[in-house]
Amino acid sequence: MSEYLKNINSPADLKKLSLVQLPDLAAEIRETLLTRLMATGGHAGPNLGMVEATIALHYVFDSPADKFVFDVSHQCYVHKMLTGRKDGFTAPERHGAYSGYTNPSESEHDMFTVGHTATALSLATGLAKARDLKGESGNVVAIVGDGSMSGGEAFEGLNNASMLGSNFILLFNDNEIAIAPNFGGMYQNFAALRETDGTAECNFFKSFGMDYCYVSDGNDVQAMVEALQKVKGTDHPVVVHIHTEKGKGLSWNKENLEGSHFVMPGGSSLDDVMGSFESCGSIMAEHLLEKIKKDPTVIAITPATPGQSFLTTDFRKEAGRQFIDVGIAEEHAVAFASGLAKNGAKPVLCIVSSFLQRTFDQLLLDLSLDRSPATILVGNATINPGDATHCGIYDIAMQSSIPNLIGLAPTTKEEYLAMFDWALEQTNAPVVIREPSAVVSAGREVTFTDADLGCYEVAERGTKVAFIGLGNFFQLAGQAKTALKEKTGIEATVINPRIYSTLDEKMLESLKAEHEIVVTLEDGVLAGGFGQRIASFYGPSSMKVLNYGAAKEFRDRMPVEAQYQRDHLTSEQIVWDIEMCI
Amino acid sequence: MSEYLKNINSPADLKKLSLVQLPDLAAEIRETLLTRLMATGGHAGPNLGMVEATIALHYVFDSPADKFVFDVSHQCYVHKMLTGRKDGFTAPERHGAYSGYTNPSESEHDMFTVGHTATALSLATGLAKARDLKGESGNVVAIVGDGSMSGGEAFEGLNNASMLGSNFILLFNDNEIAIAPNFGGMYQNFAALRETDGTAECNFFKSFGMDYCYVSDGNDVQAMVEALQKVKGTDHPVVVHIHTEKGKGLSWNKENLEGSHFVMPGGSSLDDVMGSFESCGSIMAEHLLEKIKKDPTVIAITPATPGQSFLTTDFRKEAGRQFIDVGIAEEHAVAFASGLAKNGAKPVLCIVSSFLQRTFDQLLLDLSLDRSPATILVGNATINPGDATHCGIYDIAMQSSIPNLIGLAPTTKEEYLAMFDWALEQTNAPVVIREPSAVVSAGREVTFTDADLGCYEVAERGTKVAFIGLGNFFQLAGQAKTALKEKTGIEATVINPRIYSTLDEKMLESLKAEHEIVVTLEDGVLAGGFGQRIASFYGPSSMKVLNYGAAKEFRDRMPVEAQYQRDHLTSEQIVWDIEMCI
Repeated sequence: MSEYLKNINSPADLKKLSLVQLPDLAAEIRETLLTRLMATGGHAGPNLGMVEATIALHYVFDSPADKFVFDVSHQCYVHKMLTGRKDGFTAPERHGAYSGYTNPSESEHDMFTVGHTATALSLATGLAKARDLKGESGNVVAIVGDGSMSGGEAFEGLNNASMLGSNFILLFNDNEIAIAPNFGGMYQNFAALRETDGTAECNFFKSFGMDYCYVSDGNDVQAMVEALQKVKGTDHPVVVHIHTEKGKGLSWNKENLEGSHFVMPGGSSLDDVMGSFESCGSIMAEHLLEKIKKDPTVIAITPATPGQSFLTTDFRKEAGRQFIDVGIAEEHAVAFASGLAKNGAKPVLCIVSSFLQRTFDQLLLDLSLDRSPATILVGNATINPGDATHCGIYDIAMQSSIPNLIGLAPTTKEEYLAMFDWALEQTNAPVVIREPSAVVSAGREVTFTDADLGCYEVAERGTKVAFIGLGNFFQLAGQAKTALKEKTGIEATVINPRIYSTLDEKMLESLKAEHEIVVTLEDGVLAGGFGQRIASFYGPSSMKVLNYGAAKEFRDRMPVEAQYQRDHLTSEQIVWDIEMCI
Repeated sequence: MSEYLKNINSPADLKKLSLVQLPDLAAEIRETLLTRLMATGGHAGPNLGMVEATIALHYVFDSPADKFVFDVSHQCYVHKMLTGRKDGFTAPERHGAYSGYTNPSESEHDMFTVGHTATALSLATGLAKARDLKGESGNVVAIVGDGSMSGGEAFEGLNNASMLGSNFILLFNDNEIAIAPNFGGMYQNFAALRETDGTAECNFFKSFGMDYCYVSDGNDVQAMVEALQKVKGTDHPVVVHIHTEKGKGLSWNKENLEGSHFVMPGGSSLDDVMGSFESCGSIMAEHLLEKIKKDPTVIAITPATPGQSFLTTDFRKEAGRQFIDVGIAEEHAVAFASGLAKNGAKPVLCIVSSFLQRTFDQLLLDLSLDRSPATILVGNATINPGDATHCGIYDIAMQSSIPNLIGLAPTTKEEYLAMFDWALEQTNAPVVIREPSAVVSAGREVTFTDADLGCYEVAERGTKVAFIGLGNFFQLAGQAKTALKEKTGIEATVINPRIYSTLDEKMLESLKAEHEIVVTLEDGVLAGGFGQRIASFYGPSSMKVLNYGAAKEFRDRMPVEAQYQRDHLTSEQIVWDIEMCI
């Protein structure tokens, strides 16, 4: 194996290599990546497929004068290796040094902090237009995978990029698969373009007014260099459509393209791991499949993240036409669910919290205004140690102002299933249910009916202090109650509100009689959330209210325990605050 | 003129006419529409262009068994006339009887309450898929104007509709203009299709996998009937691309296609009216143009609503390449602004409150995470008497949880301009400014600097009660203060917070010394909004807090005064509440 990488500390070092040395460098980088991925896990598929293209980008262009915008940016590992950050891939002790996404605070070669799909075309169009306004030159390159192309923002961006009238390059990485197999009519066109070596007359990109060229083997680094050299300095928008092999180099890749998207430490696929542990997601997937088998109108929808909702390949096979992956298209997913519900089907949209963020207007107007009875299950809706782009904390606050939309936060797996059963059969309103972040058993049968909608549940009746512990933080409420008892002797009330979209005003009113302090706990951002509505309710009274939740700030890969400390989300801190308040 | 319309009370009555009678009916309906539009104003262009197509739809299909989904639905007037609601167009006393959009509560022929663009394809795909799951038959028709096609949700819907594998018809109304002239690369393809009578090989719709046919004169009702008869009962998704004349029948239409989109009572165009009165929007547009002339990096962006931001044809001409209409593409608009700001330009996105709703995730991750210093001016950000889909009340609450994003609510025109000047030149964060809903003069010079960011302004210093009147409701705070003085003798404090994204904790803390009640007032929805954060701040203290704003409920065309009454947003009601609290 070559040893070029050790001498590459910047794109300038890469340029010292001759064209014929690049294939060896590519092999070396792929090997390095594989070693690192086996050790830490990560986005294997996207990065292994982009090794040659990324080398070619830095070989041909002059970053950061020329600007690269990676879409989603989980395919940026090789870019990081070539821009002074290879230690994060070669030195085990530095494996955690860099994020898995582009990040301007790490390097001047990273233009944006990106973690959601379909944004690169719009962001890059902005960079290019600013360049033109300033009278500057230089290339702007958006690097977009085929999966991201199905997102509305990407289409909007493409439709606008094509009108720039100046330099703009879209490097379109077509690996025939996004996370799960791609879905949507345009993928037939991409296939036709691949089959005709890019010569098919009907051309998705040309229909947007883009110039176009095709590279049949995007894993041929010399072909990539040649193609990029041709478009470098273009005076108009052009697409370089490249065909690559996702997960190239991963031995089991061909049999499991989807699994190669993200591998776990040791090299197993997410799909393998999924089967090996129980979560509320896996329990729900099994339950949902039973419903699907019994009722032909039940349909499971995922916006290209079936894995995160445990909708395994087996699930999909069994569900047949009652499963649909709409591709990365969250807005469509919500409106589609509304249409399904309106016409008598029972749609179940499985989505993670941070991607639900794409759908505020759709939740408000496409779904809730007409009270379409769709069910939305929200995964990873919890303070998590992930990237700033994948926090699971915004969904409650985002829904706060939306009329008609029922928001439920179960505390146990039994409650989750009971709420789901109720939501699926009712026909009055859309329902969002936050998936519990841990498998907690109620240890008893749990029911949920229309009558439960308006009222909070008193789990333990006490006096003086009342804890309202929403969803995942119901457990914390119990712990805080115990800690308070130990420290002060106060026997507090503990309430499971279950619903976060409305206040149980009758119960809140009744608490005034024997309570002085109400403590709210929610597993989400505090500002604009559930607890503040309760604070507002008690505003005119003498009831004191303490609201707990996540602070309004971006957090990047911060351990959960550290976040809890920061937000006073430990029973010790809560009791301390209460004592200050008494 | 024919007198067919009087006998048409349902689509069944329409079907009694012979094909040769339809042109006369079209003429009669157009005449009726014009009379009504002169009297009340309304969406002239979209409806006048769709007269023949709508007649043909109801002539060929069998609504409601066959289902029509109108995109935006402001082109549904003729549909309403043919489905039992013609009194709203013929009888002056019934002119206000029906909304300007489809509404299921009015008729079984209306599938959804719709007012935003680009949703029909997804909603209709849902209807069609539910039909298939239930094993039913019938046609599903999405009726989409060319302007709506630029919205991300429409692309996502098209990409998914094409995969249905069953009956689905997209009636694509191409009138060469949306609200303002269409922008985006795909419009070149539509032009090529028009020029080749639909035969161009490169075909936007076919690239999504749709079947396709073209009708060159969509205002020829017989040609339309023929075309729709051919696709009726299709077993796969098909596009009927029709070319129509927007605003057909409006005498001044050809000279002012854009103006014909919405006419005012008397028949003048919105553009004419715009020049005739002063608003904070018009003042800002003038101010913005001055900035543009002085600084080549300042750029005004509109997502297809230049009229609503007073970016008149003259403005656009003068701004040249420093103005860009990105089409109906709000998500792109925000990410584009981020890219511009990141590369040193000074983007100013002019958007109305209800369309900003499309951009929660973009505001959060594309803009605020990287602190891109773009300026966003939000128009119609106020409780208004419009349709439920066009309320201006959600933007504050939607922003509540977004870190780094600075939200400003000026109270006077001078403050608006001062805040804008500051926002434009700072490079630290994105700034959203709510345009004041009325032209109020401060009567003095107003400045705004970095130092003003963290602190609220005390306008009048008093004791016992403090009014915090945000933006448009600062005036109301003053009125309530006066009313309180008259009734109780209390000399209250009045505060202009100016910023709604952060709390001035120092000032709020200091109020505790001499105040017992804090009253917050905001021109937006209460749940998840500004005031509740203040209630939360005071939660642990003995300060009482009264929050005022709009209730969390959909309101459709409710007069503003009635809404104020309902929300206790009058000084009498506020004083009454305060007295209850003392």
